[in-house]
Amino acid sequence: MNAVIDRLRRTTDLIVGADDLRERLDSGRPLRIKYGVDCTAPDLHLGHAVNLWMMRQLQDLGHRVVFLLGDLTTRVGDPTGRSETRPVLTPAQIDANAASFLEQVSLVLRTDPSVFEVRRNSEWYDAMPVAELLGLFAQVTHAQLMARDMFRDRVAAGREIAVHELVYPVLQGYDSFAMESDLTIVGSDQLFNEQLGRHFQQRLGAPPQVVITTPITPGIDGRAKQSKSLNNYIGLTDSPRDKFGKLMSIPDELVEAYARVYTELPPETVAALADASGPAARDAKLRLAAAVVTRYHGAGVAKAELDAFRRTFTDRTEPADMPELTVALAHPTVLDLLRAAHPNASNSDLRRLLRQGAVTLNGIRQHNPATEVDLPVILKSGPRTWHRATPTPPTAGGASPLRGSPLT
Amino acid sequence: MNAVIDRLRRTTDLIVGADDLRERLDSGRPLRIKYGVDCTAPDLHLGHAVNLWMMRQLQDLGHRVVFLLGDLTTRVGDPTGRSETRPVLTPAQIDANAASFLEQVSLVLRTDPSVFEVRRNSEWYDAMPVAELLGLFAQVTHAQLMARDMFRDRVAAGREIAVHELVYPVLQGYDSFAMESDLTIVGSDQLFNEQLGRHFQQRLGAPPQVVITTPITPGIDGRAKQSKSLNNYIGLTDSPRDKFGKLMSIPDELVEAYARVYTELPPETVAALADASGPAARDAKLRLAAAVVTRYHGAGVAKAELDAFRRTFTDRTEPADMPELTVALAHPTVLDLLRAAHPNASNSDLRRLLRQGAVTLNGIRQHNPATEVDLPVILKSGPRTWHRATPTPPTAGGASPLRGSPLT
Repeated sequence: MNAVIDRLRRTTDLIVGADDLRERLDSGRPLRIKYGVDCTAPDLHLGHAVNLWMMRQLQDLGHRVVFLLGDLTTRVGDPTGRSETRPVLTPAQIDANAASFLEQVSLVLRTDPSVFEVRRNSEWYDAMPVAELLGLFAQVTHAQLMARDMFRDRVAAGREIAVHELVYPVLQGYDSFAMESDLTIVGSDQLFNEQLGRHFQQRLGAPPQVVITTPITPGIDGRAKQSKSLNNYIGLTDSPRDKFGKLMSIPDELVEAYARVYTELPPETVAALADASGPAARDAKLRLAAAVVTRYHGAGVAKAELDAFRRTFTDRTEPADMPELTVALAHPTVLDLLRAAHPNASNSDLRRLLRQGAVTLNGIRQHNPATEVDLPVILKSGPRTWHRATPTPPTAGGASPLRGSPLT
Repeated sequence: MNAVIDRLRRTTDLIVGADDLRERLDSGRPLRIKYGVDCTAPDLHLGHAVNLWMMRQLQDLGHRVVFLLGDLTTRVGDPTGRSETRPVLTPAQIDANAASFLEQVSLVLRTDPSVFEVRRNSEWYDAMPVAELLGLFAQVTHAQLMARDMFRDRVAAGREIAVHELVYPVLQGYDSFAMESDLTIVGSDQLFNEQLGRHFQQRLGAPPQVVITTPITPGIDGRAKQSKSLNNYIGLTDSPRDKFGKLMSIPDELVEAYARVYTELPPETVAALADASGPAARDAKLRLAAAVVTRYHGAGVAKAELDAFRRTFTDRTEPADMPELTVALAHPTVLDLLRAAHPNASNSDLRRLLRQGAVTLNGIRQHNPATEVDLPVILKSGPRTWHRATPTPPTAGGASPLRGSPLT
């Protein structure tokens, strides 16, 4: 079963219990793979899907994903209204979120009952007497819980931890015992809680689950992680066009990492995508975008998107050679750039160009003359007029702040 | 109702909510007084009884003591066997301990149903869903719990706190809400937990209980508190003779404090007991011992014990003047002292004295010649032979280690 593990390793940070994993895969018994989620409204993105694809690989070998809704904690009231804590959801909201979760998950996982099972942790907690819960608490120390980064950081920052938040890892850990988890595949931020799962399984006489953690991949803006609040993620439910377009917008230096974790392109292909710049970087992104769209929507859709993208952007032949526009303003607006590009045109001429949709920056249509622009940028103003706008080098001085060419 | 409060103040350290207490006493409504105990085998001593007598005063005015057995936590398993945690008890043990508790409590409290009610906190916790318990946890922060001295001390000492221990104060606090406590009278070590009771009552929309804390009185050996493990306490179930004898053995400087908290002697009498020494100190102790025994067993029994004590010890007229026996040995035994007291007697004469019960040290009969003795001590060997045995002052030297008088 080393081939299986090797394949998983492509997107693995750490395996806790690697020997157990090998042994259990060898045993031929279908493994129970814990996939635990809370019940807030889901918006799965490519980062989440890394773990889902690994589970899918195992499903294809006959192992079973147990999709565990942590519905207990969503029913915990928090009358203090602390921002840290999760919202209280009604049963109807929980059901709706669960349905949405399953719909998104089914974009990757197989959901036939032979390899997929849905559970809720209220199944065991609703039936659990308070005394038994306290018995679980007796098996964990305060120091163990406080070892968790998140708690340490909060204490260090002088922020509060409500006691229910403090004990959530205990509940999440016990879940592994209750559902007889063999394996769980989680982001590295969940390692602590899942280690507690191993702790409870061992304490309660069950074999401890294997924990595989996966790396966290940066957002499309290069920031540390994809997140809904930063709007820098590629959602599983994004249209093929949106997926394609967002992937084309990532920083060049992320192409290799994205291709490694978000596609199944062969390692040598992935390696070849690294360190490209200029037109080669665009080609590398096209390759990445097509591979990702293929994975989710099939090769036909990917080909269509590739063609559409080329038609829209590439085939309107952005010239290899275009006039430079040096800009001395620290924060030029779209209108500033247009004035520089067309020094003889009137403001109303320039505004008309904008209204007509004839102005793009790096291929993105502009409508607002007041939008501030980061340099360098490719400005297109009219069907055949291109400029490469760059900031004035620090040594330059004295000249007019903007120099350009006549309106065509 | 200031008279009531003044009377309670005799044995009060602190009142949290004194205005509420005054108002509630004035309202004429019978108050519900929380008396919470855990279910371990009880051995109530005079220290516990201070609080009970205050409750008794309130019962005499028609208020109701709610005796709350914290039976929930005794059913929490602790598979780790940490010494800090309480033993797990069977239901039969809990019932037996509860019965014993009630028997001891009834030595002070009235137990007729109009002013006494027995509850168990399992009544509400057995019916509480885990989600609701977590909802309680949501109303307390980690920092609040860690403010408790006991927890801080443990962390500082590098000792562990199991998570169930950490949350016990939450449970004890919620008890106050569930049982509708108006008032609780506790040792100052319970202030933290009972403050949490106020917290929960306020959070849940109920009037917060008043908390009265009482001072902790030293053990009969002068150590910080009475405890079973130090065997330095006077149990409520001790016989009148044992109570009397133990009180006669306390250090002189404790007489006033004991009289203040353990008796109802008028304040001026108590003040007069202070700072006595020599025979006056013994008289002060006799007064204390008689007052305590009167409180628990009535004036007749107290008089009988006083007489018996005088017959046994005082009337055998320990002379005000008696020969000194200076002892140079660092660790003299009883036999050493007897040899010094009777230099001309044979060892077998001395052993016979011991066998006859004729030898006492500070009024306590001695049988074992090898018992080591702390100096100074009053040695009685025979019906009329007294010595005051003292250590040789450090400057003395060269002389025979023991000097005494002939056997009479």
